[in-house]
Amino acid sequence: MITFSNWGEWMRHSLELSATIAFTLSGVMTAARSRLDGVGVYAVSFLAALGGGTLRDILLDLRPFFWVQHVEYLWGVMALSTAAMIFMRRRHFEPTEKVIQLPDALGLGLFAAVGVDVASSHGMPALVAVLMGVITPVFGGVLRDIVCNQIPAAFIDHRPYALCAFLGGWLYLGLQALNTPDWLTLTATVFFTAGLRMLALWRDWQLPIWRVDR
Amino acid sequence: MITFSNWGEWMRHSLELSATIAFTLSGVMTAARSRLDGVGVYAVSFLAALGGGTLRDILLDLRPFFWVQHVEYLWGVMALSTAAMIFMRRRHFEPTEKVIQLPDALGLGLFAAVGVDVASSHGMPALVAVLMGVITPVFGGVLRDIVCNQIPAAFIDHRPYALCAFLGGWLYLGLQALNTPDWLTLTATVFFTAGLRMLALWRDWQLPIWRVDR
Amino acid sequence: MITFSNWGEWMRHSLELSATIAFTLSGVMTAARSRLDGVGVYAVSFLAALGGGTLRDILLDLRPFFWVQHVEYLWGVMALSTAAMIFMRRRHFEPTEKVIQLPDALGLGLFAAVGVDVASSHGMPALVAVLMGVITPVFGGVLRDIVCNQIPAAFIDHRPYALCAFLGGWLYLGLQALNTPDWLTLTATVFFTAGLRMLALWRDWQLPIWRVDR
Repeated sequence: MITFSNWGEWMRHSLELSATIAFTLSGVMTAARSRLDGVGVYAVSFLAALGGGTLRDILLDLRPFFWVQHVEYLWGVMALSTAAMIFMRRRHFEPTEKVIQLPDALGLGLFAAVGVDVASSHGMPALVAVLMGVITPVFGGVLRDIVCNQIPAAFIDHRPYALCAFLGGWLYLGLQALNTPDWLTLTATVFFTAGLRMLALWRDWQLPIWRVDR
Repeated sequence: MITFSNWGEWMRHSLELSATIAFTLSGVMTAARSRLDGVGVYAVSFLAALGGGTLRDILLDLRPFFWVQHVEYLWGVMALSTAAMIFMRRRHFEPTEKVIQLPDALGLGLFAAVGVDVASSHGMPALVAVLMGVITPVFGGVLRDIVCNQIPAAFIDHRPYALCAFLGGWLYLGLQALNTPDWLTLTATVFFTAGLRMLALWRDWQLPIWRVDR
Repeated sequence: MITFSNWGEWMRHSLELSATIAFTLSGVMTAARSRLDGVGVYAVSFLAALGGGTLRDILLDLRPFFWVQHVEYLWGVMALSTAAMIFMRRRHFEPTEKVIQLPDALGLGLFAAVGVDVASSHGMPALVAVLMGVITPVFGGVLRDIVCNQIPAAFIDHRPYALCAFLGGWLYLGLQALNTPDWLTLTATVFFTAGLRMLALWRDWQLPIWRVDR
């Protein structure tokens, strides 16, 4: 079991790393599209990559933030943003967005699970814990878009994103209530959430439209 | 006196409930006007209904938030937003805005009083307490408008709204300093603030204009 | 030495005061350009003058805020904004912006030093401390611009501002590591950062441009 637990740790760190890369690149590209300068690119990358978890910790009153305990995340986001500004061109944006869909979806699942877990282990009621599981992966992008003076994509593009994290969060709590082993709960949540997200992208699922004008 | 105190509790809860409904509906309608999707409607409703009190608690470093202690508020906002998306149409927006003016004004008074009270009972100086009494009812709408990529209505529509809460806050502190019974302080603040707001709407009072271009 | 230390205190308070005046006026003018009403002018002035330090304290979980301990700052910002609304006209804006460049640059250096110092004295790692030294002077303006529905000037105008604070922050940490006396570390950081900023304005230095479209 120790072997497996190590494998679990390794999987979790790989997921975390690849998700952070995906979130950072989404920040870089959004900043470039809004024609921000270099300082703006760094600021928006930080927000996109670390904003959701930071907001969750402020709401739950937890310190230190994970990027204070692991400063290498800050250096990593800065290094990646710098590399992107040196090597990326507009023509790379669309293929990059395709490539990061999968790590982004896996990050959605992982951060949803982590968010729910952190919140419920601090005694939050189920719905609050699930909402923290939505805020953790989603609000980085929300802050990124607000700073770039846009309506957050997660709130306007009619694609299921936050919804996948919401459903994944309930799955996590359900499995936990059934005393499922931690590694299985985590794995199931990540793959369920990421699968739902990828399915939604692949089948072009849309959130139901509110026919307000009818 | 117990009877009266119970009546006071009942009045306070009714006011809180009707104000939360009014704030939620303002969020739903602002989100719809900005063409957000369903996820955006929920997010903006949450911000409009609960954002001001949450920001106050972050500033005062108070936990748990009231919506953690009373999760029924979260469920209520979600249920109301869902119902609005099913039943509301564009033609209902203007009459709804008329109807919610009164509960909104009462909520302005109530949340101003609550904000001042929470802040001053945690040792805040008078001006800080009054500003917390302004933030509590006003910043839900401010966050709502920022997410919808608009300049906050409270800062640009030249109608007295935050100002009523500001004056109501000083009244609250004044009555408290005179050892007025709590129920009377609360009632007077709510009716003074709400009355001022309704009067301002009815007489179409405008904030003085800064003749910056002259 | 006591004389000098008193002189240091006096210098620090003068710098703090003149920086707060500069930040407040930047808030007043941004609000006026976005055609906010009087309430909006006050709100944006508060954010511009006090928002950066407040955000730093929220991130570091420090209370009470400096404007709670020194309510005179709140009264001062309100009084200055009121005076500006009575006496300022559009034709005063450009000369005012010229005049406040120096106190603004000095404030940039002072708040960077204070931000780094507060963060590192609470055990933050070097990079986090430096980023807090950037957030303290810069994020007041960022919040000001977000509320006025603009992309933050610090992120888009290609002029070194946050970068000066970033470099000044490392200088501060370096001098501290060399056991430089506090007054010298503070003075050197303020004049290095402010000098860099003034030089950048005078020589019209631009941040390197990311040739994303090539």
